[in-house]
Amino acid sequence: MEQWINHIKDPKDLKKIPLEKLSEVAEEYRHFLIESVAETGGHLGASLGVLELSIALHYVLNSPKDKICWDVGHQAYVHKMITGRRDRMNTLRKPHGLSGFPSPWESQHDPFIVGHAGTAISEALGLACARDLKKSKEKIIAVVGDGAMTAGLSFEALNNAGHLKKNMLIILNDNEMSIARNVGAMSRYLNKVLTNPLYNRIRGEVEKQLKRFRRLSKLATSSLEGMKHLFVPGILFEELGFRYFGPVDGHNVTGLVQTLRDVLTLNTCSILHVVTQKGKGCAYAEEDEEKGHGVVPFNVKTGEKIEVKPSQGSTASSVSYTQAFADVLSKHARRDLDVVAITAAMPSGTGLLQFQKEFPDRFFDVGIAEQHAISFAGALARGGLKPVCAIYSSFLQRAHDSVMHDVALQKQRVVIGIDRAGLVGADGATHQGIFDIAFLGSVPGIVLASPIDEYEMDKMLELGLHHAAAFAMRYPRANIPKMFDAFAKKSFDIGEGEILMEGEDVTLLALGSMVEVACKAHALLKKDGVSARVVNMRFAKPLDESLILDSLHNTKHLFTLEEHVFTGGFGAKVLELLERQNIREIPLKRFALPEEFIEHGSREAQLDEFGLSPEKITAGILKELSLKKHFLSE
Amino acid sequence: MEQWINHIKDPKDLKKIPLEKLSEVAEEYRHFLIESVAETGGHLGASLGVLELSIALHYVLNSPKDKICWDVGHQAYVHKMITGRRDRMNTLRKPHGLSGFPSPWESQHDPFIVGHAGTAISEALGLACARDLKKSKEKIIAVVGDGAMTAGLSFEALNNAGHLKKNMLIILNDNEMSIARNVGAMSRYLNKVLTNPLYNRIRGEVEKQLKRFRRLSKLATSSLEGMKHLFVPGILFEELGFRYFGPVDGHNVTGLVQTLRDVLTLNTCSILHVVTQKGKGCAYAEEDEEKGHGVVPFNVKTGEKIEVKPSQGSTASSVSYTQAFADVLSKHARRDLDVVAITAAMPSGTGLLQFQKEFPDRFFDVGIAEQHAISFAGALARGGLKPVCAIYSSFLQRAHDSVMHDVALQKQRVVIGIDRAGLVGADGATHQGIFDIAFLGSVPGIVLASPIDEYEMDKMLELGLHHAAAFAMRYPRANIPKMFDAFAKKSFDIGEGEILMEGEDVTLLALGSMVEVACKAHALLKKDGVSARVVNMRFAKPLDESLILDSLHNTKHLFTLEEHVFTGGFGAKVLELLERQNIREIPLKRFALPEEFIEHGSREAQLDEFGLSPEKITAGILKELSLKKHFLSE
Repeated sequence: MEQWINHIKDPKDLKKIPLEKLSEVAEEYRHFLIESVAETGGHLGASLGVLELSIALHYVLNSPKDKICWDVGHQAYVHKMITGRRDRMNTLRKPHGLSGFPSPWESQHDPFIVGHAGTAISEALGLACARDLKKSKEKIIAVVGDGAMTAGLSFEALNNAGHLKKNMLIILNDNEMSIARNVGAMSRYLNKVLTNPLYNRIRGEVEKQLKRFRRLSKLATSSLEGMKHLFVPGILFEELGFRYFGPVDGHNVTGLVQTLRDVLTLNTCSILHVVTQKGKGCAYAEEDEEKGHGVVPFNVKTGEKIEVKPSQGSTASSVSYTQAFADVLSKHARRDLDVVAITAAMPSGTGLLQFQKEFPDRFFDVGIAEQHAISFAGALARGGLKPVCAIYSSFLQRAHDSVMHDVALQKQRVVIGIDRAGLVGADGATHQGIFDIAFLGSVPGIVLASPIDEYEMDKMLELGLHHAAAFAMRYPRANIPKMFDAFAKKSFDIGEGEILMEGEDVTLLALGSMVEVACKAHALLKKDGVSARVVNMRFAKPLDESLILDSLHNTKHLFTLEEHVFTGGFGAKVLELLERQNIREIPLKRFALPEEFIEHGSREAQLDEFGLSPEKITAGILKELSLKKHFLSE
Repeated sequence: MEQWINHIKDPKDLKKIPLEKLSEVAEEYRHFLIESVAETGGHLGASLGVLELSIALHYVLNSPKDKICWDVGHQAYVHKMITGRRDRMNTLRKPHGLSGFPSPWESQHDPFIVGHAGTAISEALGLACARDLKKSKEKIIAVVGDGAMTAGLSFEALNNAGHLKKNMLIILNDNEMSIARNVGAMSRYLNKVLTNPLYNRIRGEVEKQLKRFRRLSKLATSSLEGMKHLFVPGILFEELGFRYFGPVDGHNVTGLVQTLRDVLTLNTCSILHVVTQKGKGCAYAEEDEEKGHGVVPFNVKTGEKIEVKPSQGSTASSVSYTQAFADVLSKHARRDLDVVAITAAMPSGTGLLQFQKEFPDRFFDVGIAEQHAISFAGALARGGLKPVCAIYSSFLQRAHDSVMHDVALQKQRVVIGIDRAGLVGADGATHQGIFDIAFLGSVPGIVLASPIDEYEMDKMLELGLHHAAAFAMRYPRANIPKMFDAFAKKSFDIGEGEILMEGEDVTLLALGSMVEVACKAHALLKKDGVSARVVNMRFAKPLDESLILDSLHNTKHLFTLEEHVFTGGFGAKVLELLERQNIREIPLKRFALPEEFIEHGSREAQLDEFGLSPEKITAGILKELSLKKHFLSE
């Protein structure tokens, strides 16, 4: 085994291998990839689906001169292996290891960082326009999953590309399943193409015609019009101005090489429709989308996930915030028939699969379409329903205008569950959910809640479902701390925080995931003789003004704690409050994340690295107090 | 004249008029509308285009039970007149008058506020899903301009609607021209439909077939499949799951009534393609898109704009910031062949027409597609160019994730000209550009500049074109103040402010449009014996930290001035800076806009209303100083 791939350090090495041996190369990569991802965890299914395509592309192209834009980036594992990163695959998604996505900081073969779906056609079109203005010649390819095609950004770019007709190739990787089983009219259309009775005949014809093109070279272009009927499956794309080819088998590596050579010879704006199978060659990944997309390590023989045991002395329960959200949502939906749920292609990641099973008629998966998810929710609310959207924090950036224009401005009763709000660990910079308070914080009338446990989630959802305006609830990619079981459950209203622990010297104003950290810091501070009040703020907006002012009055020193960047975050809101209250002596220090793109790593280690562990916060508070003392004694 | 429309106080009155008289009604409305908009200013062309359609819709539907979703809202003037607002048309877009867009606060016949394009299909689909869950029966219509169809949001909603197949009707208002002459593959496709040799035959057939449907009622549905070849022009939509009808003449009001009755009888998910002429019936509005879309009052006979003379004693020059931006951009483009410009369907509004004329090959109008505009710009930068996008502040919200993921994260050299940053006057709540510092302010590494005059714009553009990261420049919908001509022009670097006027008691830290106000306040304060330093900050990010700290040290009192909401704005950034510097005594007061949706009105009056006039700021500063004095003497 590995007689071929051991010699591939660069795409140039791949190109030296005889065409007829490429299927052996593919088998070696497949074996290696499965073993490797079983160890590290990662998006196995997507990369197995494009394994042959990745090999064929590098066999035909000259990367890095020619550019391959992957959409989304988790398809790119095989591309990473071919482009000199195979020996580091064991570091995939680990701290300081390979990123789970393409990255120009990692390799010159990656033109872009790609974590959000739907970017590749814009990328390829931009590179193609730049190339033509620069009078250069390289080939430019976008490889777009059918899921990513549902993103509005993809369509905006298609609309522009079909108009400009630059020489570029869009490969539509139709794996009949994006992260969730694909939904939407485009997906149905593609299925229709595949199940067309003409399909089998056409598939054969395509290859025959393409062989002819190769000989006809450029002259072929004009005669293509006459053969258009052969390509009738892609009429939708033809109508938008593209030359459509396909569908072709995405797992026949030699066939792909031939087809790519032919299509690229035409030097036009083309779409090649490639049919692949997600998880190909790995039985459990083929069968089970969850396993194929799963990102934890697994047993390479059975596909069973290897559960990572909580570290000794872990203070977290076994229930994630995502799971708790799913549970309380279903509970409310049972009592209130107006509750409906919306996901943008993340039914599993957001926990909504559970809702879908119980309330299929009240569940909407709109595809990778965050803008529409929120605008649609606004209209559902206007129609008298109580919509709840669950979206990852970093993807919600796509829907910023929809939150503003179609929910907040219209005073629609829409609840947004912001999942992955905070540091996300292995997914890295593109997925960090650390900007949401900043961009949602200036949306007029919005409520920004942050629960510490399932009880608060339940109560907040209740409040949100009856609040005639935008109501967002942010929660981290983490399990709920056990410690809160011991606290009394008190009812509360919007904007109401609570004192969890009393203290006299300082107050820790903590939001969401930072409340547990504040409680631990309370204990550490006690050892140093500092008595700290701990406030569970519950809401970043509206702030509990009287509780903050009371804390200022009674403890003299305020500290804010949040899993969010400093800029425009919860602490900044407290600063703004004090200024608005005409308070000009502001003894406040903030603990938050630096305003930067934070790479992949362990959430716990990063919280500590950026000063948000109980120990670092305790040290920071003690330093602030000693500075103050020093200043007073001067 | 006006024998019919004087009797129409409500759609019910319209429905009493005999069908054969509707063309007379249309002529009366047309005459009234032109006269009215000539007085008030407003988007005349769009509403003239859908005049007959608006009448036909209300003739057939039962609004407000049935819902009409207009996209975008400036098509809705005739709808407003029919639904009881004709007698207030003379207040259109004026303070406390009718909004230029639909609004539920104004009429129960307007289901949504609509200022941004591309929302109607999401809206209609949401209402349709809610109706079905509520087991109600009303009809739901979206009227979508062909320009709005290029928005990614429209496609996301189409993709979802073609899948769910709810009973709803999308009317594609194909006026062959959105705000700018339409671009993109979708537009080309629609043109192809219209110029198809089959078109004339088909047009006749459609009506014949529809007559037959009326008789066949529901049974017709199954037989439709067989007639599909008749509707071949709309195959793109058919492939996406819609029943397509058209194209039909949008100015034949009786024909439209018949067609709508027929199509609505089918109770399916349909698209009706209606061809209209923007500005129909008003020669100059038909001929000249600028005049038709122009929003200032005009001479009703000639179409010439009536120039609003600057008020006596105006301190503004005759050059707008938009014009200055266009000028400096062209200047740089002449020197540097890598400079390219991008607009999202606003070549005129952003001043880029000028660039387009001089550099057609380096100009890209991507359609109403702000996400793609920015992501595409990121890729142009990666390809070695220096892209400059000009986008209105409120529309840039659509591209928030693209700024984050496709520019800032990738460290692409992209300049964003944020036009209409601040209060926008007559366009109102949907267009206010008062949130951009808040949402862009937490984007890592972004530069937020705000020039006071053409010299600074020029210099900032120079800096941005050579800065390998996101660089945004915000400027208001206003003319450049004359006063800055008198100041010496000094060179500066990123993050460098300047002291415009010296003073000892207080410092006014002013951003962009507020610098002139600060200079005027300086003079007023002088009369009250207060010596004020005036700082032109130039950058909201990065802040000129040393200049701010120097001002704090030398003048003791800081005041921040900005045309932006308080939350997360420039003043908040100064607060955050002082906290970060471990300063706990913070003698800072902010002047900014309240965090709310501000209705249409005059920019000057609103600046005063919200305390941002020189007089109000002077009063605020004096009050703060007396409070301080009071506090000290206690």
